[in-house]
Amino acid sequence: VAAIDDLVAELSRLPGIGRKTAQRLTYHLLHQSKDRLSRLAVALTAVAERVRECSRCGNYSEGDVCEICRDPRRDPGLLCVVEEPSAVMVVERATGYRGRYLVLGGRLSPIEGVGPDQLRVDLLRRRLQEGEIREVILATNPSLEGEATATLIQELLAGTGVRVSRLARGLPVGGDLEYIDSVTLSHALQARQEIT
Amino acid sequence: VAAIDDLVAELSRLPGIGRKTAQRLTYHLLHQSKDRLSRLAVALTAVAERVRECSRCGNYSEGDVCEICRDPRRDPGLLCVVEEPSAVMVVERATGYRGRYLVLGGRLSPIEGVGPDQLRVDLLRRRLQEGEIREVILATNPSLEGEATATLIQELLAGTGVRVSRLARGLPVGGDLEYIDSVTLSHALQARQEIT
Repeated sequence: VAAIDDLVAELSRLPGIGRKTAQRLTYHLLHQSKDRLSRLAVALTAVAERVRECSRCGNYSEGDVCEICRDPRRDPGLLCVVEEPSAVMVVERATGYRGRYLVLGGRLSPIEGVGPDQLRVDLLRRRLQEGEIREVILATNPSLEGEATATLIQELLAGTGVRVSRLARGLPVGGDLEYIDSVTLSHALQARQEIT
Repeated sequence: VAAIDDLVAELSRLPGIGRKTAQRLTYHLLHQSKDRLSRLAVALTAVAERVRECSRCGNYSEGDVCEICRDPRRDPGLLCVVEEPSAVMVVERATGYRGRYLVLGGRLSPIEGVGPDQLRVDLLRRRLQEGEIREVILATNPSLEGEATATLIQELLAGTGVRVSRLARGLPVGGDLEYIDSVTLSHALQARQEIT
């Protein structure tokens, strides 16, 4: 059946999904109601068509500026720097953080050819030039690349008078921010340590 | 972002996908190009709108009668009875079988409330009444429910003069047809054993 073969082909192009997994996923999907499949397709299309980068923080957004950047109740002096949009979601869900974010879009990785130019360092610089930010919280992953990325940002901020802190040690080294429970993460945010 | 929340919600409604998996899958999808997401949505929509049941065998089909049932080079005297459409795909890919199929749509399971009326037993009866079928190959799963389902079909065929065979023992008992390698499955088809 051509429609089924097409779906298997599209699914197997996704990262981490091989042909067999795609087949099994497709037969799972075929067991769903047509209505549910249609709604999933609509949700995918909406994401493809409407989601773009926030021009102020780099996070996913449906408009030019995202909801968090537009929210006037957020503290404009507090900037949490993360690697990926998924980290914003994790911090939002897990903690009571009421500042704003900057999404770098990755981490320094010589192996993968990611240097400072591949990250949103210029966007960070522009935000700092506005003069509103008094503290930058480094919330990169507690991995080697994350630490290197944090050091890069720290160097960038040297001599600007902006306070720099990072999430409290307590994060498991070598781990991934997405897999940390919210109690630990909230604690790490509360006990964040000043670097400069 | 509403579009992202919607996609997470739709994905987490799928079987075996919890909220966290749906979130991770969504962020994976967000890393794909918009073009790829659109094509996945189109493939899903095509499956939702075009795929239905073949009126002759119960397998997935884009027309009233599926490609296999329409193929004149297929032996109309040979009918392979399987539980699910996924088993048709597995037999097609793994073996050189050139007969036709009947997809029961499940297996007898008192626990799940599945009796003969929930399976396509009437469709099987109608196929037999046409008089073309000389052999029925039972290819239900080698599980307890699969065996019970095979016995049901066997009883239905008693006294009709139709030969009944089943896939050769050699299938791992308690296993699932989808996970069997093609060499074993081809062998099991070749060495199928006559029951009556």
